[in-house]
Amino acid sequence: MSDQVKVVLQESEMPRQWYNIAADLPHPMPPPVGKDGKPIGPEDLAPVFPMNLIEQEVSTKRWIDIPEPVLEILKLWRPSPLYRAKRLEQALKTPAKIYYKNEGVSPAGSHKPNTAIAQAYYNKEFGIKRLTTETGAGQWGCALSMSCKLMGLECKVYMVRISFDQKPFRKMMMRVWGGDCIASPSNTTNAGRSILQQDPNCTGSLAIAISEAIEDAVTSKDTRYALGSVLNHVLMHQTIIGLEAKKQFEKIGVYPDVVIGCAGGGSNFAGISFPFICDKIHGKNVRIVAVEPEGCPTLTKGPFAYDSGDVAMMTPLLPMYSLGHTFIPEPIHAGGLRYHGMAPLVSHVQREGLIEAAALPQLECYKAAVLFAQTEGFVPAPETSHAIAMTIREAEKAKQEGKERVICMNWSGHGLMDLAGYEAFFDGKLKDVALDEKALQKSIDSMKGLPVPPPLA
Amino acid sequence: MSDQVKVVLQESEMPRQWYNIAADLPHPMPPPVGKDGKPIGPEDLAPVFPMNLIEQEVSTKRWIDIPEPVLEILKLWRPSPLYRAKRLEQALKTPAKIYYKNEGVSPAGSHKPNTAIAQAYYNKEFGIKRLTTETGAGQWGCALSMSCKLMGLECKVYMVRISFDQKPFRKMMMRVWGGDCIASPSNTTNAGRSILQQDPNCTGSLAIAISEAIEDAVTSKDTRYALGSVLNHVLMHQTIIGLEAKKQFEKIGVYPDVVIGCAGGGSNFAGISFPFICDKIHGKNVRIVAVEPEGCPTLTKGPFAYDSGDVAMMTPLLPMYSLGHTFIPEPIHAGGLRYHGMAPLVSHVQREGLIEAAALPQLECYKAAVLFAQTEGFVPAPETSHAIAMTIREAEKAKQEGKERVICMNWSGHGLMDLAGYEAFFDGKLKDVALDEKALQKSIDSMKGLPVPPPLA
Repeated sequence: MSDQVKVVLQESEMPRQWYNIAADLPHPMPPPVGKDGKPIGPEDLAPVFPMNLIEQEVSTKRWIDIPEPVLEILKLWRPSPLYRAKRLEQALKTPAKIYYKNEGVSPAGSHKPNTAIAQAYYNKEFGIKRLTTETGAGQWGCALSMSCKLMGLECKVYMVRISFDQKPFRKMMMRVWGGDCIASPSNTTNAGRSILQQDPNCTGSLAIAISEAIEDAVTSKDTRYALGSVLNHVLMHQTIIGLEAKKQFEKIGVYPDVVIGCAGGGSNFAGISFPFICDKIHGKNVRIVAVEPEGCPTLTKGPFAYDSGDVAMMTPLLPMYSLGHTFIPEPIHAGGLRYHGMAPLVSHVQREGLIEAAALPQLECYKAAVLFAQTEGFVPAPETSHAIAMTIREAEKAKQEGKERVICMNWSGHGLMDLAGYEAFFDGKLKDVALDEKALQKSIDSMKGLPVPPPLA
Repeated sequence: MSDQVKVVLQESEMPRQWYNIAADLPHPMPPPVGKDGKPIGPEDLAPVFPMNLIEQEVSTKRWIDIPEPVLEILKLWRPSPLYRAKRLEQALKTPAKIYYKNEGVSPAGSHKPNTAIAQAYYNKEFGIKRLTTETGAGQWGCALSMSCKLMGLECKVYMVRISFDQKPFRKMMMRVWGGDCIASPSNTTNAGRSILQQDPNCTGSLAIAISEAIEDAVTSKDTRYALGSVLNHVLMHQTIIGLEAKKQFEKIGVYPDVVIGCAGGGSNFAGISFPFICDKIHGKNVRIVAVEPEGCPTLTKGPFAYDSGDVAMMTPLLPMYSLGHTFIPEPIHAGGLRYHGMAPLVSHVQREGLIEAAALPQLECYKAAVLFAQTEGFVPAPETSHAIAMTIREAEKAKQEGKERVICMNWSGHGLMDLAGYEAFFDGKLKDVALDEKALQKSIDSMKGLPVPPPLA
């Protein structure tokens, strides 16, 4: 690695299986439940997801084969390179060695296609012809549009109207890949129509978009719904990131002291970290850090509870750290990190003490992102900037301690579609807004009366 | 290559030298001249470019070492992958094997940084602290902003006002990399002020922006000007593309029957093709095709002449195919292919009969780009779509002839910053406009009275 900038794997070295951390959890996860506290079974999910994905969702098999047709498409950009960020190290004058896994190399620019391709494949195998989903900032809608086109499915994306109007380029990206993107609330569903009747100028919300996408899926022929994060099978599809990274570290005879990922719903964090957590469970000494924005501090300030995935409480109750399903974060630019809950599997490993969590302020993250772009070249997504800021904190600490620490971060995506956030940062228009503790408490209180998950058995 | 999608080189396999085709030309190139027909010497260029780059410009040495600090930065994204576009082949049902070199993997998203990094380096070596340039659509301004920041120089970009106003994201990209982008005409130069006095609402032109950038360079301390295409040294820096591609083909025991690149100023076309033209000069049987838009058919309809690089005739006269320096193409979306002239080296190999040229209509190119995005995933830049459309023509011909032809195209950049063109295409707002032959003839006539280059000696 003397003068090597990146560790590149050949396609022949790509992992052939996903890692399912459910097989290695010290304590079993509580199941999803209904509002009556009764476990939700696979058959309850059948109208929404195809049975082969539901089987993955509840599987405890450690290794699950990646189907050949999925591998074939993943090869369009995978294996992704593991970079040594030498120029960033030099700028920080740190003895730390900083590595980052570049997931921005996918056609959609982030890690999201890793699961979108797999979900499109399993739906197709199950005979499904069309997928629906919701999208906020548009990252997931783009990934699913592309994946459906590459797998030969139709794709319908309900995009929150305010984003639809303010971020026209994401919508155009979906269109290039044949995705049918519609502003939500729309007049094509009962859920949308009823909202529009009350407020014809409604700018929409993720919760409304979810309602529309699920309604469309369960009422249309050969149609199912796809989710971009949170669920077990989604996180598992992302473990190819960490599995590749481990191979890459092996090649250069290095093992990280700390693994860092930003965490919104939890999928990119799980992708990089679960294979390392597997080592940790089996005795390896490695720190794992999930990074969230101060404005949406799910893991750091939320209680562990049964909560709904959406504000309308249409989804089953999931065992997770949550700020409450009524929590509305300040408008921060990292749209992918604004979710009120955290994936049950990520919540569980936090509960098991296997990971640490930190909440970082927005300005520090943008400052870190700019330093990254100006030393390493690549422009990070606002979400990714949280992992970078945490990495810089760790590198500074290594400098203070005079220690040669090896840091591995997941560089979850590029920010070329999110430049308005940088512009606002440079113009001094971004502020670190203190969390409204009262509003947070009120949202947390909204979970009262819901079933309570059992203590770690 | 059985189930391999891309050929990936390790950094240790990166070319260590650029290829200078001037060493292999069957006939010598005519020199640049002044309006009096007298050759322009290196000293005439010294106020504009640093002497080490001027030396490269006139060098006839076949191989020129790539300096270590340039290699170090190129490694941030190089070697770039050579892809086999199997899914596109399948969609076309062609027996042709289609390979593409993906230059969209650079942080700026195109091949442009290959020379921007080198130019920033040589200027810095020469003691220069600041570079100026012009940019139309913004691709080059972004590449130079990034490269200056990575090399520790300041960068000033004069961006045509209409693009500055209509394409704010390119400007934001430059800002992330510390580039100082200003709308042209500006009130910071004599050239800009004199234009604004006549027309305070002037929307600018590339010619005006060039004037401002050159004036700034020659009147400011420790400042020089940088050009993104056309000149010999710029084209040479791009040959790393073709040199890598040749290594990649060697690895899989394949040699292309035809090499295709789009051609605006000529730099990405030269980058992919010159190393193959070297083989052709030495007896190899390979076709080389330059693709331009029907709306700006420099190689296919322009005469070979001495012409100026800009409408104000501030630059030396270059021996090149040209539509005349007063030619104004219809507003086509491939902003990088609207230049009235063609790089002298590309013009020369055309004159030598070493390459073919074709002019393609815009709608065919967008159709090709959409098919590419929907089969291979990556969204092409509008410029790149011309190479894709030509590739598809060759693949269709191979199908008709029942031949297994190997096609290599340069995929010069991604189109994530150019989605408005796709939107216009889908909305039926793009038209193939017939070339205004009268206007073209008038522009060609504007070259009358200029010195005439000698016949091939």
